[in-house]
Amino acid sequence: MSLLLLVLDLVGTFVFAISGATAAVTRRLDLFGVLVLSFVAGNFGGITRDVLIGSVPPAAINDWRYLAVSLLAGAITFHWSSAIDKLSSPVLVFDAAGLALFAVSGTQKALAFGLNPVMAALLGMLTGIGGGMVRDILVVEIPTVLRADIYALAALAGAATVVIGQYLHVPATAATAVGALLCFWMRLMAIHHGWRLPVARRSEQLGGASAGSKDRKD
Amino acid sequence: MSLLLLVLDLVGTFVFAISGATAAVTRRLDLFGVLVLSFVAGNFGGITRDVLIGSVPPAAINDWRYLAVSLLAGAITFHWSSAIDKLSSPVLVFDAAGLALFAVSGTQKALAFGLNPVMAALLGMLTGIGGGMVRDILVVEIPTVLRADIYALAALAGAATVVIGQYLHVPATAATAVGALLCFWMRLMAIHHGWRLPVARRSEQLGGASAGSKDRKD
Amino acid sequence: MSLLLLVLDLVGTFVFAISGATAAVTRRLDLFGVLVLSFVAGNFGGITRDVLIGSVPPAAINDWRYLAVSLLAGAITFHWSSAIDKLSSPVLVFDAAGLALFAVSGTQKALAFGLNPVMAALLGMLTGIGGGMVRDILVVEIPTVLRADIYALAALAGAATVVIGQYLHVPATAATAVGALLCFWMRLMAIHHGWRLPVARRSEQLGGASAGSKDRKD
Repeated sequence: MSLLLLVLDLVGTFVFAISGATAAVTRRLDLFGVLVLSFVAGNFGGITRDVLIGSVPPAAINDWRYLAVSLLAGAITFHWSSAIDKLSSPVLVFDAAGLALFAVSGTQKALAFGLNPVMAALLGMLTGIGGGMVRDILVVEIPTVLRADIYALAALAGAATVVIGQYLHVPATAATAVGALLCFWMRLMAIHHGWRLPVARRSEQLGGASAGSKDRKD
Repeated sequence: MSLLLLVLDLVGTFVFAISGATAAVTRRLDLFGVLVLSFVAGNFGGITRDVLIGSVPPAAINDWRYLAVSLLAGAITFHWSSAIDKLSSPVLVFDAAGLALFAVSGTQKALAFGLNPVMAALLGMLTGIGGGMVRDILVVEIPTVLRADIYALAALAGAATVVIGQYLHVPATAATAVGALLCFWMRLMAIHHGWRLPVARRSEQLGGASAGSKDRKD
Repeated sequence: MSLLLLVLDLVGTFVFAISGATAAVTRRLDLFGVLVLSFVAGNFGGITRDVLIGSVPPAAINDWRYLAVSLLAGAITFHWSSAIDKLSSPVLVFDAAGLALFAVSGTQKALAFGLNPVMAALLGMLTGIGGGMVRDILVVEIPTVLRADIYALAALAGAATVVIGQYLHVPATAATAVGALLCFWMRLMAIHHGWRLPVARRSEQLGGASAGSKDRKD
């Protein structure tokens, strides 16, 4: 179980690192910038969770495998960036898998450190979305997760499943598997059907929307 | 006293969370983005302070009431954003109150963890301004507090009052009240009279304010 | 040795603080914004390292001298910003010296806290580049270190020298001196010869470099 979690965790890191490296290559950052964004996207969520629950040094700092996997993903993306471009659909699937796993493993770690269930679920969600948020901040963009389709909500649903499972004394393995599958399924459905969260209605004269959306990427 | 501090702390969180949600609504973020910015604006200052002084998990992560208050503020802002717009002046007053409280309560917590007086006052100031700084970074703006009217200085004055009070053996309650009132008053005066801090003089050819985009690197 | 390290550390803080203050003055931030960017640029790298290795409160928060040096640098830059402009070449030299020192001292501290050699070298590098990264994020720019000439690599080379020296049982003083000189020399050579890291090749239709600036906000 523990080995399985580690493997899945490293797979999640790898996929997220590719998303960071792709963002860096698109913005013409140099090789170092690509590797930094790989590491940040793959590990920042987990690092933040570990700092907040007092588990220092964070696993991603203390265990060289997270670094190795991140650098490998960055190097691959750097050298075969045109090929990665063509893979966007598989990457989205892997990204959904990474999100699912980080959400449930992050929640479990927070529960193990004694956080209350609600905050443990939120830290699980943060583990899943944190890397992508800082990736976007570093390339000076409003984080995708704050304005895009169902992403954080899928992570939260997976994390909540783990918490509810613990409350109901369901075996941890089962709750984890169900939570991860739920998150994965929600995310794929959101991509497939273009599900989005609502945006607040604004009075016309504010003009806000146009200012915001003109320079917004899509 | 402790209950009073908690109530005031939650009121401060609520008001700052409204400022975060308003920033998110203006930029057309979705519901999740609005709730994240509510939580960040209301709690990031305190979370940063707690991480820096080694009080983990931070109170805002460990106590569900901070989350509940933040989400409530976010939901209200999301549904009645037009009404909130009309309230800008009351919001500024509440914001000044939140700043005052966070500055003094943050200072007290830092002193309680054994920091030296100068750094305790600065951490108190950081508690007051940190949430708004990260709110602005997430929506890709230079933090208001770095370029706007007297804001951080009011927080620092309140925080310094608490520190000086402790040094002079004034009862903590009295020093806290005076510090909070001083900060609140300075902030209201700054808004009312348009007080601003000076900006460095630059040689003419630099072109000043408009230069912001011109002197950006590429 | 310890006194020497402290002095060099404070010199590094001073020089990095000038770089932060200069960025703030150029963007017309007010006096407070200038002082904040001074402190952030001079100390954020070390603060992040200390939080990640569990050394809280961080030295820069706990020792008033780091603050004093940062504020002094900020005040000097604020009042004599035209003079500082003319100094850009000496500032680059001092900046290279600060980078060299932060890289080796950060690595030593991480090793002392029991991190494995690879991560200790990376934390040393982070100590050197962290302040400048947050400085750039606060003024809404893609961090220079992610896209500019050889900078992080110089820090990494210095940090790796310290780690290798420890592995080979070379006296710490010697390894530190060699590491710092190597970083300093690499950085000066990179400036002098315009050394840069490679950028990934992209298919033509993506538009590459120009796309980066077009979708930048103003």
